[in-house]
Amino acid sequence: MDATTTAPPALDLLCVNTIRTLSMDGVQRANSGHPGTPMALAPLGHRLFTRHLKHDPAAPDWADRDRFVLSCGHASMLIYSLLHLSGYEVSLDDLRNFRQLHSPTAGHPERGEVPGVEFTTGPLGQGVSSAVGMALAERMLAAHFNVDGHEIVDHRTWVLASDGDLMEGVAQETASLAGHLALDKLTVFWDDNRITIDGTTDISFTEDTAARYESYGWQVLRLDDVDDLEAIDGVVAEAIADTARPTLVVTRTHIGIGSPRQDTPQAHGEPLGAENVKLTKQAYGWPEDSEFLVPDEVRTAYAEVGERGAAAGQAWDEAMDAFRAARPELAEEFRRRMHGELPDGWADALVAESFEDAGAAATRQSSGQAINLVAPKLPELVGGSADLAGSNLTTITDAGDVSATDYSGRNLHYGIREHAMGAITNGLHAHGGVRAFGGTFLIFSDYMRPAIRLAALQGLPSIFVFTHDSVYLGEDGPTHQPIEQLASLRAMPNLLVLRPAEANETLAAWKVAIEQRDRPVAFALTRQKLAPFTYGGESKLAGAEVARGGYVLREATGGTPDVIVVASGSEVHLALTAAARLEEDGTPTRVVSMPCQELFLEQPREWRDAVLPPHVRARVSVEAGATFGWERFVGDAGETVGIDRFGISAPGDQAADALGINVDAVVSAAHRALATVHAGPGMEL
Amino acid sequence: MDATTTAPPALDLLCVNTIRTLSMDGVQRANSGHPGTPMALAPLGHRLFTRHLKHDPAAPDWADRDRFVLSCGHASMLIYSLLHLSGYEVSLDDLRNFRQLHSPTAGHPERGEVPGVEFTTGPLGQGVSSAVGMALAERMLAAHFNVDGHEIVDHRTWVLASDGDLMEGVAQETASLAGHLALDKLTVFWDDNRITIDGTTDISFTEDTAARYESYGWQVLRLDDVDDLEAIDGVVAEAIADTARPTLVVTRTHIGIGSPRQDTPQAHGEPLGAENVKLTKQAYGWPEDSEFLVPDEVRTAYAEVGERGAAAGQAWDEAMDAFRAARPELAEEFRRRMHGELPDGWADALVAESFEDAGAAATRQSSGQAINLVAPKLPELVGGSADLAGSNLTTITDAGDVSATDYSGRNLHYGIREHAMGAITNGLHAHGGVRAFGGTFLIFSDYMRPAIRLAALQGLPSIFVFTHDSVYLGEDGPTHQPIEQLASLRAMPNLLVLRPAEANETLAAWKVAIEQRDRPVAFALTRQKLAPFTYGGESKLAGAEVARGGYVLREATGGTPDVIVVASGSEVHLALTAAARLEEDGTPTRVVSMPCQELFLEQPREWRDAVLPPHVRARVSVEAGATFGWERFVGDAGETVGIDRFGISAPGDQAADALGINVDAVVSAAHRALATVHAGPGMEL
Repeated sequence: MDATTTAPPALDLLCVNTIRTLSMDGVQRANSGHPGTPMALAPLGHRLFTRHLKHDPAAPDWADRDRFVLSCGHASMLIYSLLHLSGYEVSLDDLRNFRQLHSPTAGHPERGEVPGVEFTTGPLGQGVSSAVGMALAERMLAAHFNVDGHEIVDHRTWVLASDGDLMEGVAQETASLAGHLALDKLTVFWDDNRITIDGTTDISFTEDTAARYESYGWQVLRLDDVDDLEAIDGVVAEAIADTARPTLVVTRTHIGIGSPRQDTPQAHGEPLGAENVKLTKQAYGWPEDSEFLVPDEVRTAYAEVGERGAAAGQAWDEAMDAFRAARPELAEEFRRRMHGELPDGWADALVAESFEDAGAAATRQSSGQAINLVAPKLPELVGGSADLAGSNLTTITDAGDVSATDYSGRNLHYGIREHAMGAITNGLHAHGGVRAFGGTFLIFSDYMRPAIRLAALQGLPSIFVFTHDSVYLGEDGPTHQPIEQLASLRAMPNLLVLRPAEANETLAAWKVAIEQRDRPVAFALTRQKLAPFTYGGESKLAGAEVARGGYVLREATGGTPDVIVVASGSEVHLALTAAARLEEDGTPTRVVSMPCQELFLEQPREWRDAVLPPHVRARVSVEAGATFGWERFVGDAGETVGIDRFGISAPGDQAADALGINVDAVVSAAHRALATVHAGPGMEL
Repeated sequence: MDATTTAPPALDLLCVNTIRTLSMDGVQRANSGHPGTPMALAPLGHRLFTRHLKHDPAAPDWADRDRFVLSCGHASMLIYSLLHLSGYEVSLDDLRNFRQLHSPTAGHPERGEVPGVEFTTGPLGQGVSSAVGMALAERMLAAHFNVDGHEIVDHRTWVLASDGDLMEGVAQETASLAGHLALDKLTVFWDDNRITIDGTTDISFTEDTAARYESYGWQVLRLDDVDDLEAIDGVVAEAIADTARPTLVVTRTHIGIGSPRQDTPQAHGEPLGAENVKLTKQAYGWPEDSEFLVPDEVRTAYAEVGERGAAAGQAWDEAMDAFRAARPELAEEFRRRMHGELPDGWADALVAESFEDAGAAATRQSSGQAINLVAPKLPELVGGSADLAGSNLTTITDAGDVSATDYSGRNLHYGIREHAMGAITNGLHAHGGVRAFGGTFLIFSDYMRPAIRLAALQGLPSIFVFTHDSVYLGEDGPTHQPIEQLASLRAMPNLLVLRPAEANETLAAWKVAIEQRDRPVAFALTRQKLAPFTYGGESKLAGAEVARGGYVLREATGGTPDVIVVASGSEVHLALTAAARLEEDGTPTRVVSMPCQELFLEQPREWRDAVLPPHVRARVSVEAGATFGWERFVGDAGETVGIDRFGISAPGDQAADALGINVDAVVSAAHRALATVHAGPGMEL
């Protein structure tokens, strides 16, 4: 243990070595994992969990708990060990079953699998970035709920982050925003171990990271020896004392400390090996043949975590009682929002609205209307744009901006940082108490895919408002025209892609979006104006149908279709025109509007078969994007009308037409499909 | 023109105002585009193109030209105007047809459409990031070719970048690398106009950007008035003088300068309007009713650009002659590499290798072998990994690392910066003279999608080596297990996704990859070991078949299949086992290996029908990923075996089995498909 200049007191050292040996044993038994970082960060984790974190292991969802994010998710045995010792529902058997089938102790910590894991981490840069969202949620909720001397929202966000976390672009975007927004209750410990997988960090990382964070407006502190527990207390005190800036603590550590592999890349991502485990335990003065050993003294010491947590929780409960007595409505709003419940009648304004007689409007406009129709009833609805608010139409009217000096607004300005927006939107939801949306052009969804995926993976209901959803955006050209983005998003599990066709569908889609509790939603909205549907002259809103993903918008004359044209978004209008042409020529044609493939595929067979009857095999899909994935709906005899190349810079209608998105193409495709059906079975590519 | 403190000399002012008015007119006529930034940056563009850039408009592909990247691609009228005036093949009619159908002057500048456009820009952060790759290519080629006093590679890379460029994470990643690699011949002018679309920059961007770049190891200079042409000369001289660091020039500008919309967001992304155009021309002392006016004096002044360029080109030609005389082989290698030609016999070692009798190997291992088999014959092959070289197996043996003090190596260390790797790989190819690959886990392809797309869009043959390509990677769990990534990549136009099944296919796939000249390639390679195919006992390499995308690996007994199982990568082995089981039960079964869907779909109908005969409708696809897109190959009667949910942390085989990737699932699916065929036509979802 040469590297340790300051040995902790005996009991603390025992605790620290317990965490270290549990981590080693977990990885060794799984024969897979990352032992070195949990060993190195054990003193910091120990000190935070026992002294500084405000948390109650018996109430892991307590609203005013501190948030702790292990951004270096590969060090998962660290948090599992800490949670186990602290009394969360993580058993010693769970530690023994690290990385095994059906065990909650997955290779990387997963929110929802293990109480106390606030955010699923592993993809580097995401945890530290979404933590910015958590710290922001705390400030926004405090601004809204802490009134008349009641301080019911007052907690901190703690992050342990690796070199990789800080190198990733998303973390740089969010760090800049955290500084801009002066999120002082955010503290990031950077595990400065000077080792990455490929060698020492200096092969690729020689910037002055401390100076970089100072340039973002952060306080930067140094913890030169992570084993010095009092020094940890010191930097924590300094972090808390700075009420104007977030804090980065440059934390010097030694990966795999005490093991023969200390300070080498080998300590990062593979088990130490049985022999090295023994040697390391010897170096720790640990029984070398023990496994998953937790000394009684350590159990006793950690029991205090629960006691301290229970006391803190009780104090907060009392504060909450007082708040409830003084401000019952606000207290109820807090409870409701933290539970993710919607208030009665929240959607009334959406449902009451009808656009049948309105003029044409882009679905991005209808989306902006939807946001502002529900915003008065849903104070938790907040959001913003990556510098395209005027194009995405994501501004909540008269709700004010969030800034470093005033967190009471509801509009967020992300700058030109789409990935940060995705990660922060996720962090806002992981914190709870807010429902957040983030807007940009659909093409730039590519910049934030890792964040979208993490929302889907851990079931966060982030709402992504993607506008300018096809080549119809026009002159900006192929760099800005989405082609494969719809298919790419639809391929992702647990994500709803909503592409409404006009105003009524857009409002209904927003209702669907806000009702989601455990999955994210991606809107695809038009730049160009579209006429509202009349729904056959009846005053019928699209609500229920949109929630079913796809529905019969226009039945074939006579009620028995020869051909079905299925489309989404703006191309539903093209489908209607094509259907009229086909019917003129004597072909009974049904038009199916399919704003959400995922919801449609979730419907019972009766619904699906009623909308797309199996015996009607002449089908055409129309969408101004990649045809990829539409084969599922049109089948062997069917045809897809779409764009399987990059776009073209020209006025929108001309661009689409030149790329084959036009009525002629749909009519021709319908004739081809009919011919195929008449030719009988068989499948050609 | 109040903001101009230093009026340029009269002739220069005339030139600058020509650029400004051409830009205004182009946008106004298109009634679409971004006038304000070209107007603001006109003096800088003018001075660079006429004084500082080493370029020859008559030879836009001259190998040793300076590279100029307009990273703020929305300011496209600036580069179009400059190229037109300088004598590139951009006509006044092209300017008049800005953003119109079939015009080369697209909304954002597109490489290949307009000579002189080095990189397709528009998605912010990409141009300035890929410029780092260009500057790196220059240093690497100089290290290799500049010998014995011959300096045939000696040029600079110039970038104009916006606020958005510098906010984007990818630009922060690449800036850190550019500083680390001491790319001193890279100069970035940051258009510090203090305006973004949503307002003044201070709503989201208050960091000290200059300090941030200093922390990366850049020289930071200030150009307080972009209209001061001599000050431009000054910062250029300082940038050139610093031979240890890249340079950022904080360039204070006024968006929409001289117009009634100066210094407002409105000047950014919409035409000024006819009236404002007139008023602005008045302010410039310009004939207010003129359109696309280029005064004769300006024509004369710009003629010098061509003369200077021709002289520079001639000087270089002479240097090249001397080099050729002294070092004929090296000179020929330079010519060949800059033309993207492959040397004779480059693939001999790949083709000669056979693994029929070898042991099992992961395809990532075979990929590493392939790289090292061709590397000796292909000195242009360079590459690296985003800190996973030991896992991606991307190291070129004995070739050395590229570092700030030695650019002669061939191995690049990107750190944990996948997006930077993608952008730099693109920049290396856009520069020319190198063939570059970049490696990471398949899951992290999500981090670099915007870069992959820009490679596909502009036809750069970037090679992305994605390993750990399925849930078989095991214990790292769902955060690391790709599911939708294969489908998402396949949905992208002009990208080949290569997922070979074993060693022979992997070598053949590398041959395909290196032969691409105008599209990128994404490999999907296994972590787990796979046995080499015996190809029916014959010594038959997979080469030709892999190039066709899909082929019959195992014919049904008797030659007439009842069922076809089509699979890619590691699941081809599962398909073979399932086929053996099906045949035991009396079902003649063909196995099709499909390492590349895109190549297969490009084959003539005869090949496709021979591999997947239309009358054999009982088909099953198997891939350990999203089924999305496989319907194209299995059709209505077919079945897909795949994973349409997120993964699970467990040893790889157990994880796959638990997720339904096993022989039983394939056999059952085959029986279902046979039953469907027997039931007759009709399509159910």
